[in-house]
Amino acid sequence: MDSPATLTPLLDRVSGPADLKSLPREQLPQLAQELREEIVRVCSVGGLHLASSLGATDLIVALHYVLNSPRDRLLFDVGHQAYAHKMLTGRRAQMPTIKKEGGLSGFTKVSESEHDAITVGHASTSLANALGMAVARDALGQDYRVAAVIGDGALTGGMALAALNTIGDTNRRMLMVLNDNEMSISENVGALNKFMRGLQVQRWFQEGEGAGKKAVEAVSKPLASLMSRAKNSTRHFFDPASVNPFAAMGVRYVGPVDGHNVEELVWLLERLVDLDGPTILHVVTKKGKGLSYAEADPIYWHGPGKFDPATGEFSASKAYSWSNAFGDAVTELAAQDPCTFVITPAMREGSGLVGYSKAHPNRYLDVGIAEEVAVTAAAGMALQGLKPVVAIYSTFLQRAYDQVLHDVAIEHLNVTFAIDRAGIVGADGATHNGVFDLSYLRSIPGVRVGLPRDTAELRGMLKYAQNHPGPFAIRYPRGNTAPVPEGTWPDLDWGTWDTVQAGQDVVILAGGKALEYALKAAAGLDGVGVVNARFVKPLDEALLRELARTARALITVEDNTVVGGFGSAVLEFLNAEGLSVPVRVLGIPDEFQEHATAESVHARAGIDAPAIRTVLAELGVDVPLGV
Amino acid sequence: MDSPATLTPLLDRVSGPADLKSLPREQLPQLAQELREEIVRVCSVGGLHLASSLGATDLIVALHYVLNSPRDRLLFDVGHQAYAHKMLTGRRAQMPTIKKEGGLSGFTKVSESEHDAITVGHASTSLANALGMAVARDALGQDYRVAAVIGDGALTGGMALAALNTIGDTNRRMLMVLNDNEMSISENVGALNKFMRGLQVQRWFQEGEGAGKKAVEAVSKPLASLMSRAKNSTRHFFDPASVNPFAAMGVRYVGPVDGHNVEELVWLLERLVDLDGPTILHVVTKKGKGLSYAEADPIYWHGPGKFDPATGEFSASKAYSWSNAFGDAVTELAAQDPCTFVITPAMREGSGLVGYSKAHPNRYLDVGIAEEVAVTAAAGMALQGLKPVVAIYSTFLQRAYDQVLHDVAIEHLNVTFAIDRAGIVGADGATHNGVFDLSYLRSIPGVRVGLPRDTAELRGMLKYAQNHPGPFAIRYPRGNTAPVPEGTWPDLDWGTWDTVQAGQDVVILAGGKALEYALKAAAGLDGVGVVNARFVKPLDEALLRELARTARALITVEDNTVVGGFGSAVLEFLNAEGLSVPVRVLGIPDEFQEHATAESVHARAGIDAPAIRTVLAELGVDVPLGV
Repeated sequence: MDSPATLTPLLDRVSGPADLKSLPREQLPQLAQELREEIVRVCSVGGLHLASSLGATDLIVALHYVLNSPRDRLLFDVGHQAYAHKMLTGRRAQMPTIKKEGGLSGFTKVSESEHDAITVGHASTSLANALGMAVARDALGQDYRVAAVIGDGALTGGMALAALNTIGDTNRRMLMVLNDNEMSISENVGALNKFMRGLQVQRWFQEGEGAGKKAVEAVSKPLASLMSRAKNSTRHFFDPASVNPFAAMGVRYVGPVDGHNVEELVWLLERLVDLDGPTILHVVTKKGKGLSYAEADPIYWHGPGKFDPATGEFSASKAYSWSNAFGDAVTELAAQDPCTFVITPAMREGSGLVGYSKAHPNRYLDVGIAEEVAVTAAAGMALQGLKPVVAIYSTFLQRAYDQVLHDVAIEHLNVTFAIDRAGIVGADGATHNGVFDLSYLRSIPGVRVGLPRDTAELRGMLKYAQNHPGPFAIRYPRGNTAPVPEGTWPDLDWGTWDTVQAGQDVVILAGGKALEYALKAAAGLDGVGVVNARFVKPLDEALLRELARTARALITVEDNTVVGGFGSAVLEFLNAEGLSVPVRVLGIPDEFQEHATAESVHARAGIDAPAIRTVLAELGVDVPLGV
Repeated sequence: MDSPATLTPLLDRVSGPADLKSLPREQLPQLAQELREEIVRVCSVGGLHLASSLGATDLIVALHYVLNSPRDRLLFDVGHQAYAHKMLTGRRAQMPTIKKEGGLSGFTKVSESEHDAITVGHASTSLANALGMAVARDALGQDYRVAAVIGDGALTGGMALAALNTIGDTNRRMLMVLNDNEMSISENVGALNKFMRGLQVQRWFQEGEGAGKKAVEAVSKPLASLMSRAKNSTRHFFDPASVNPFAAMGVRYVGPVDGHNVEELVWLLERLVDLDGPTILHVVTKKGKGLSYAEADPIYWHGPGKFDPATGEFSASKAYSWSNAFGDAVTELAAQDPCTFVITPAMREGSGLVGYSKAHPNRYLDVGIAEEVAVTAAAGMALQGLKPVVAIYSTFLQRAYDQVLHDVAIEHLNVTFAIDRAGIVGADGATHNGVFDLSYLRSIPGVRVGLPRDTAELRGMLKYAQNHPGPFAIRYPRGNTAPVPEGTWPDLDWGTWDTVQAGQDVVILAGGKALEYALKAAAGLDGVGVVNARFVKPLDEALLRELARTARALITVEDNTVVGGFGSAVLEFLNAEGLSVPVRVLGIPDEFQEHATAESVHARAGIDAPAIRTVLAELGVDVPLGV
């Protein structure tokens, strides 16, 4: 790589795993190299998971060489590192469609291919899934193999560790490959990570390039000998002292080995895959493998924008994202208030917290991919006088629903939730859409929910949240907004909505992203009002009462499921008050939304400006044609 | 114990932790004994957490002797083992009110006492809370101690393991006491548990009674010497080989020691509590300590019914619970269908699965206190052809909201959720009420939700769920129902409601527990209809359309929050269809409900029969007075 693209004669001969198996194994490194080159080209359009896919390519080639997919089940945790897997299982021609509407998913997806064992996007699920599969296999008297590839970041998620505890106990035949690249998306944190670094230092990793192969050779022979002597009972091949949490969990541990030596991986996998009981193979890989600029900065190259494959040149986005707006606001706030504290579950970059983490390192905690710990640690902080802010994506807060309810809400603790990527996220698809938060948060007693329309309102809400008791969730979308000058801290008129466009005939109620659409739809329409419904809980009950009296009809618009969301809240209130006014509820329909641009999903869902205009017309508003 | 109750002179002198500290330490065993005797008397009324409270008493005495609560923060995981803590912190006189309306909570509760550091009820939260507190202390430049007591069962919950990973990494001064009684509520499972057993076997535990003290003495001296040589850096006092997952996590590990030797515990705690960085003290205790019949069967005596403190005599409940109804049904079903498989997160007894686990041991999996793993392992099973049933309490399914959505619902997998303890549970209070499931499940696309009215309907739903694709949640309350003959498998008229009492004027729609109230309220009232709304998703849309046309008003009743629940679903449907009929929505108000009998909470919430009659009267129905 870092060289001009070459022809790909080997890859052209592989249209499925069977073709791969017919290759002599000494050609596998070449195949992996071709896959990597093609992955770089595919990813150069931007928005794809480059670095982790490059890092996992050698491993994927080796796994498919040894396993018999789809009969054997090959699971990828998170599923974003599996581009080589897609290309080896008949989807190479479709790779340019990845994450585009109607195209391949950015993750593995059961309905996309018989070779995709799980549908995934969130981290840490692969071990529990693999356990279930191994148990199912044994219960039904079948004999396929189950192998899960999990990154070191995902392994520290609570459900992965808990699954390991049951896997060690139930002792089913399964292989776990720990793909250790010292990374989740941000730098990895946590004690297990340190422990794994220790293992590497003890072994070959510090010895420089080339040492990997030597080390594998060195351990291969004892392994072979051990296996012939004590098949199915030896617990720890490479780690005779057993100073090892995996061994303590009752799982056979092998490693660490070089995750880029395809031939050696094949040799090892062939010997490990049919051992009784659970085995972890610990492989060390480099995110961005083979691409010098990606190896040097794997955090940026995790999901880079458009770039030149030959040189790695890219133009950094100058757009000001909602994440930036939050990061700037909370950094400034923390400078004023010594009680502000920010917690992230492994999303420093994504949540706009790089600047904050440098400015306030002592009031910043990254708990790794463990959303439950993020929320409950915040509860502990709030109990002791801090004002914690949990910065989290909407889809990942789903992981901590009970912690919001049980640990924060019951005692009405002062925890702020800064919820990024709320609503339809677009290209990441069904696993990542944040369209449930209004529904699940609204049903928890005492949780206030706000949807800022712009940076100033975000700042007003954040400051209000910090200085008033009780949990407050502020949700904002993926995408961009406009910066405001430092020191902008508008007073928030708590719990009130804001009439943005006067109009008494049909009034549209919408907050956040949906408000943009509403304003566009209503532009220039006499009699059509638009209200910035910036709180979903509490509602602006006074204004709703007035509107029920004065408006001919209401339209609610939300970038959230229509089931139990904002529109539902309005219906509940009007019904409880015995108020009668026609309401049209627009939102995301009650089905999972596949990947496409957010705008496209919004159009299909019927919440964008043209859709709102159609509803206005249905309600008898005189909507000019063709606008 | 096992002897007549004696006077309690020491206990009479302790009205708070300060009094305790004034006792000479050699009197502490006597104090602990008095506490235990009083706990037995308090618990003999039934329904209280006896065995775990007895097991933790010595430890609690030692902790309060060494710590300075409330300045120092003492956290109890789950909080059900803390009766001695309540008695030592000024609540002894109120102990007879425990779990009763207006009385003490069965768990620790911040609003109940300044000595209760966290409000809790669900397992595995204490470590994340303690981490947050230690971080808050350091951020605010304070210097109190933080100590968390966590059971071995709770430690295997994912969020506890994930918290440990961050605790080992962030290296804050805090003490964790692993209260190892080889139990959660059921027998403990999991590899970590086996590992801890291994530690004990290596040490004194196998050496019989009395060995504990000897072992502590033996290790005390090296500990003292180690500490003087290498204060704050020695990682593993008792375990020089470091074959230890805690040490691997970066946490100083001390143990195992006898958790019933109060004086030795005091000696150790004094030396451990101010060490820098995180320390785990592993103590071994006996659930039911000091009470021979409880020690012999700690599972029964976890939360026994009414009993004679002197003899342990009790009359086993002959009532047939909903849990029994489910257990019998699924046992019978599994005999017919080789694909039926049951998963429990550590709730074999509570979920009625003792019989099942014996009848079908190869199609039964207890994953420990790890609800996330239970649900995702079920997903893996369903992907490979099994028909898994996750048996879970409503309040604990909150832990796996994302797993239901991300791992099961997106691929519409055939997973059945048998949701026990749905609705108000009564004495366990706010942390345990299952009043959110209709709201959070209904908003997940493709999840069907049914509320059987009786055992036959439960069986019909269960069989239907097993034989039709997609997730199906069956929720039923804590409490009793009536058995039906084996082989009762009524065909379920899918998605339809059932008119139980004809009537066209006001029609009450209610499912499950709420249906009982509705029928009682409507008994003998002409023109009042009652519909068994046994599905919340899908609704019986045809019947709703008809009722909207024919009825003068509808009343929805549900044992679930009114926010986003069943009533909300009805409002959404009627609004979407443009149907207009007055609807009164009755359910649990949007606030947390404190402990009391379920009936009392239902009365206050306004969903019981008298409350429904009041609403009927408000709607103009001629309700006879005094009925």
